Amino acid sequence: MADNRKAIVLVSGGIDSATTLAIAKHEGFSVYALSFDYDQRHRIELEAADRITMSLGVDEHRVIKIDKSLMSHSALTDDIAVPKSRSTDAMSQGIPTTYVPARNTIFLANALAWAEVIDARHIFIGVNAIDYSGYPDCRPEFINAFEKVANLATKAGVEGVQFKIHAPLIRLTKAEIISKANSLGVDLSLTHSCYDPTPDGRACGRCDSCQLRLKGFADAGLTDPVKYA
Amino acid sequence: MADNRKAIVLVSGGIDSATTLAIAKHEGFSVYALSFDYDQRHRIELEAADRITMSLGVDEHRVIKIDKSLMSHSALTDDIAVPKSRSTDAMSQGIPTTYVPARNTIFLANALAWAEVIDARHIFIGVNAIDYSGYPDCRPEFINAFEKVANLATKAGVEGVQFKIHAPLIRLTKAEIISKANSLGVDLSLTHSCYDPTPDGRACGRCDSCQLRLKGFADAGLTDPVKYA
Repeated sequence: MADNRKAIVLVSGGIDSATTLAIAKHEGFSVYALSFDYDQRHRIELEAADRITMSLGVDEHRVIKIDKSLMSHSALTDDIAVPKSRSTDAMSQGIPTTYVPARNTIFLANALAWAEVIDARHIFIGVNAIDYSGYPDCRPEFINAFEKVANLATKAGVEGVQFKIHAPLIRLTKAEIISKANSLGVDLSLTHSCYDPTPDGRACGRCDSCQLRLKGFADAGLTDPVKYA
Repeated sequence: MADNRKAIVLVSGGIDSATTLAIAKHEGFSVYALSFDYDQRHRIELEAADRITMSLGVDEHRVIKIDKSLMSHSALTDDIAVPKSRSTDAMSQGIPTTYVPARNTIFLANALAWAEVIDARHIFIGVNAIDYSGYPDCRPEFINAFEKVANLATKAGVEGVQFKIHAPLIRLTKAEIISKANSLGVDLSLTHSCYDPTPDGRACGRCDSCQLRLKGFADAGLTDPVKYA
């Protein structure tokens, strides 16, 4: 049973995954951080993921390449314009153009493989169903359905291991996530959220992700430490 | 509705996926074949996948690279000996060393992304729960659970598309699959099954996969057209 406090944590470089990592550590898990390189526009995220894992401390941080060619038709992977200066009300209508087909399914499938190999039973993912709730693969019913797949798909599952997919942020607002991060001592200056940063890495301040972030800090009564263009 | 006869078919190069492809074609689907390059020992399989898709005819054949580093601990991806000369009874005990963690979950997750991008609603996978039934991710309950994930994970699913995961071989014996392939005119000389082929590509005849194949042909009253060492 020595291994049952190992957890895979998906780390993208944003506030949500950094906070999720801090929660996993706070709950006493040894963290194996997993990031994905899919040539996304914002590869600068991977540098943020590096800074965060080093700052918070993990047992291992793996970055694996995934083939993005199957996931095209998204403003995050293709040459589709990232929406700017929309109200947060407008964002909450429908599924955003930044939706990447089956992304979290692919991420969790890879996390599951690694979990089984290193004998971890816990997978943490920083999905959130409250703000910017248009992503279908950020809903509790998706997480529950994937947990069922995890337990049916694997040798470990057949042998009686119960995999648990943790989504500790799923019911929190962005302001609540930022407050949580703050209370856990996460250095949010290390995170990156912008979908469309300047070449030198500053956030645009106008894409949906920047606006949600800025609104979250404002609602939490805190100041965002990252640089804006 | 013009697109609703598009199907993704997972093609590994073996008898099962070739037969599955032939069934999808026979059922009137336009086939988008998907193969995975994960540096597996038997890369010769990918050459077989090429021959099969060309022989049976597909609209497109994609081969995508996946990072195998997360799926180690398998005789198919690591330096673990492939079992030889076991009885088919012995094979049916427990989960084989050739089990690759979360493989079919990763394969189906990628197929789902592509399905959503090309507006296909059907995914075919040649899993089989009868012969060599030790793989947990070849069971009907796994397929059903993944279908549920597919419909919850995607924009298409939220918008009312019903994804269907087809596993037409799941209840067939190897002999029944071979007979089916034969009746559909599949050229089984193009397929490759061996886990441990000679450098010039001949099958070993002794690994579990060769033995199941040879037994299948014998039970079907047919002769295996591939070359053995």
